[in-house]
Amino acid sequence: MDHPLNTSTATSALVRAATGVRTDSPPIWFMRQAGRSLPEYREIRRGTTMLEACLTPALAAEITLQPVRRHNVDAAIFFSDIVVPLKLAGVAVEIVADVGPVLAQPIRTAAAVAKLQELTADSLAPISIAVGAVVSQLGDKPLIGFAGAPFTLASYMIEGKPSRDYLHTKALMYSDPETWDALLTWAADISGQFLRAQVQAGASVVQLFDSWAGALSLPDYVERVMKYSARVFGHLADLGIPKIHFGVNSGELLGAMRDVGADVIGVDHRLPLDVAAQRLGASVPLQGNIEPGYLFAPWETLRSHVDDVIVRGRSAPSHILNLGHGVPPTTDPDVLTRIVAYVHGEE
Amino acid sequence: MDHPLNTSTATSALVRAATGVRTDSPPIWFMRQAGRSLPEYREIRRGTTMLEACLTPALAAEITLQPVRRHNVDAAIFFSDIVVPLKLAGVAVEIVADVGPVLAQPIRTAAAVAKLQELTADSLAPISIAVGAVVSQLGDKPLIGFAGAPFTLASYMIEGKPSRDYLHTKALMYSDPETWDALLTWAADISGQFLRAQVQAGASVVQLFDSWAGALSLPDYVERVMKYSARVFGHLADLGIPKIHFGVNSGELLGAMRDVGADVIGVDHRLPLDVAAQRLGASVPLQGNIEPGYLFAPWETLRSHVDDVIVRGRSAPSHILNLGHGVPPTTDPDVLTRIVAYVHGEE
Repeated sequence: MDHPLNTSTATSALVRAATGVRTDSPPIWFMRQAGRSLPEYREIRRGTTMLEACLTPALAAEITLQPVRRHNVDAAIFFSDIVVPLKLAGVAVEIVADVGPVLAQPIRTAAAVAKLQELTADSLAPISIAVGAVVSQLGDKPLIGFAGAPFTLASYMIEGKPSRDYLHTKALMYSDPETWDALLTWAADISGQFLRAQVQAGASVVQLFDSWAGALSLPDYVERVMKYSARVFGHLADLGIPKIHFGVNSGELLGAMRDVGADVIGVDHRLPLDVAAQRLGASVPLQGNIEPGYLFAPWETLRSHVDDVIVRGRSAPSHILNLGHGVPPTTDPDVLTRIVAYVHGEE
Repeated sequence: MDHPLNTSTATSALVRAATGVRTDSPPIWFMRQAGRSLPEYREIRRGTTMLEACLTPALAAEITLQPVRRHNVDAAIFFSDIVVPLKLAGVAVEIVADVGPVLAQPIRTAAAVAKLQELTADSLAPISIAVGAVVSQLGDKPLIGFAGAPFTLASYMIEGKPSRDYLHTKALMYSDPETWDALLTWAADISGQFLRAQVQAGASVVQLFDSWAGALSLPDYVERVMKYSARVFGHLADLGIPKIHFGVNSGELLGAMRDVGADVIGVDHRLPLDVAAQRLGASVPLQGNIEPGYLFAPWETLRSHVDDVIVRGRSAPSHILNLGHGVPPTTDPDVLTRIVAYVHGEE
C-alpha cells in the first residue's frame, strides 16, 4: 500500500487492527452508532429530512461526532446513507420515515440507465467539507468512510423502495445482462468516487456495505456481482487505506467478499467469528459480531456474550469489535457506552 | 418407521423421494403453490379473510386442490397459515393484508404464557375435515401437512407482528429462559398436535416451516431452539410418515435441523444443493431450491437454472424439486405449470 493521506491516525488501534496487527484488546465501534438510538441525534434531526442532514456539512459532521463523544468508541463512521451518492448524481430519491429510500421512478431499463449522470467534484463538495470538519476534531482517532456496494445500490434503484425478495433486481440481473452491467458499472463508479472523496478529505479506513448481497447464492455473487465491488475498491487502489467489506447474512460469501480486494471482512451475528476465520483460512482480519438481541439482555448476560465474541475473534489475525448488524433504534445508549468501557478495561 | 396411515400414496414419487429412494426425475411441488399467484385463488378468497379461508373446511380444501389441478404438481400442501394453531388455541390473532399476522396483545411475560390454552380435538375439527376432503380427491397423490416451528411461532407471538430483527424475541430468549421454555414448549405442543391431526386425517408427509430460524446463529439454535423442534416431531413419532424441515436462510443450521428428527431438509435458494448435500454428508434427502428470481427470466434462462438445480440435487440420496422460497404473489402461474411439464418430461 502507498502511504495513507491521514497519517495522524496510523498508530490508532483501529487502523492497526484493520491492517492485520493484533491489538491487546479489540478496537470497538458500532455500525449505525450515529443515529436514532441517541437522544442528541433525535434532537438535532428535528425538522430536517434524512438527506438534508446527510448533505448539510455542519450537521453531518456533528452527527458523526456525537457517538464518539458519548461512547468513546475507537472510530467515527461518517454519517451518511447508502443512497446519498445517488442523490448527488441527480437521481430523484427521498428517504421516507419508517419506509426507507424511495425513488420517484425505479430504474429498470437500458434507457433509464443511459440517462444516469456522472458524479462531479462539485457535487461531492458537501461530503468533503463534512469529512474535513470531522477529521479536524477527531485528532488521532480515525474516521471510517462509508458507501454502499453496487449490488445494494442497484437493488434500491431497481426496486424503487426497500424490498424483502429483490425480485425486480434479480429479474433484471438474469434477463438483461447488458443493462445490468451498465447499471452496476455506474453504481461502482459513484460508490468508488464517493469513498475516494472521503479518504481525500481525511478518512483513514473505509467500509463498503453490501447490505443485501446475502440475498444471493455464491454462484450468482461470483458471476454477476463480484467484479463491480472490486471496481469500487479499484477507485481507492492508490490511496493506501484499509478497506472493510460487510454484508448482512453473507456467511456463504465471505471468501468472495475478501477476493474483491477487502482487507477486513465484517461478519454478521449469524456466524461465530472462529467459524468465519476458519472459512477464510485464518488469514483475514475480522470485524464483528455482537448479536444485537443481547443489547436488550441483563448486563451479565450481555457481557458474557461480548467475552465470547472477543475470544472467538482471536482466531483471526486481528479483530475489530462491532455488532453483527446496525445499532437498533430502540437500544439504550448507556448499554453501548458500558460495552465500550468494559472492552477498554474501565469496568 | 411404523406403517403410515395413508397407504394409497406409498408408491408416489414424492413419498419415495422423501424416504430416500432416488427417483428418475425429482418429484416437484412449490411452497405457497396455493395462494395469490393463482387467479382462481384470488377469486375464491373474495370477501373472506385469510383465517376464515383457513378455517372453513370446504374453502381450505378447494384452495389446497387448485394448484394440483392447474400445475399437475406431485403433491398438495395443506393450505393454512403459521398462526392457525394459535387461533385454534384461542389466541387473538388476525392476518392483516400487506402486513401479516398481528396479535391483539404480544405475549412477552410469564403471566401471558401461563394463560395460553391447550388445543382440543374439537378445535382441530376444521383441520381434520378439510384434510379429509382433500385426501379423498387426491387419490394416490400425497398431501403434505403444514405447520410452523416453535421458534417461528414464538417470534410472531412475542413480536406481535412481523419483524425484521426479532429483537423482542431475542431479548426474551436471552433474558428469561424459564418463560422462553414455557412458551416454546407450548408452541411445540400445538404445532405437533396440528400436524398430527393432519396426518391422522390422511396427510402422507409433513413439512415443518421454521421460517425465521435463519435469524439465529448455530450456537443459539442448538442451545435455545432445537429441542423444541424435536418435540414437534416427537408428536409424530408413532405415525410412520416422512418429515420435511425447512427454514429460510438456514445454510448454517442444516445439520442441526436434520438432527431434530427430520427426514428431508429443505434448502433455500442461497445454498447450491451439492454444497448442502456435502455439508450433510450426502446422507439426507434434500428439497429445493429454484431461485424465485428466475421465475421472472426468459424461459431458456429459467430452464437452464432448473437443470442446474436438478444436477446439483443428484449429490443427495434423493431430491424433491421446489423453489428455495415461497411462490411470489406476482408470479405468472403459467411459468410454474411449464416447469412442472418440463420436469415431467412433457416439454
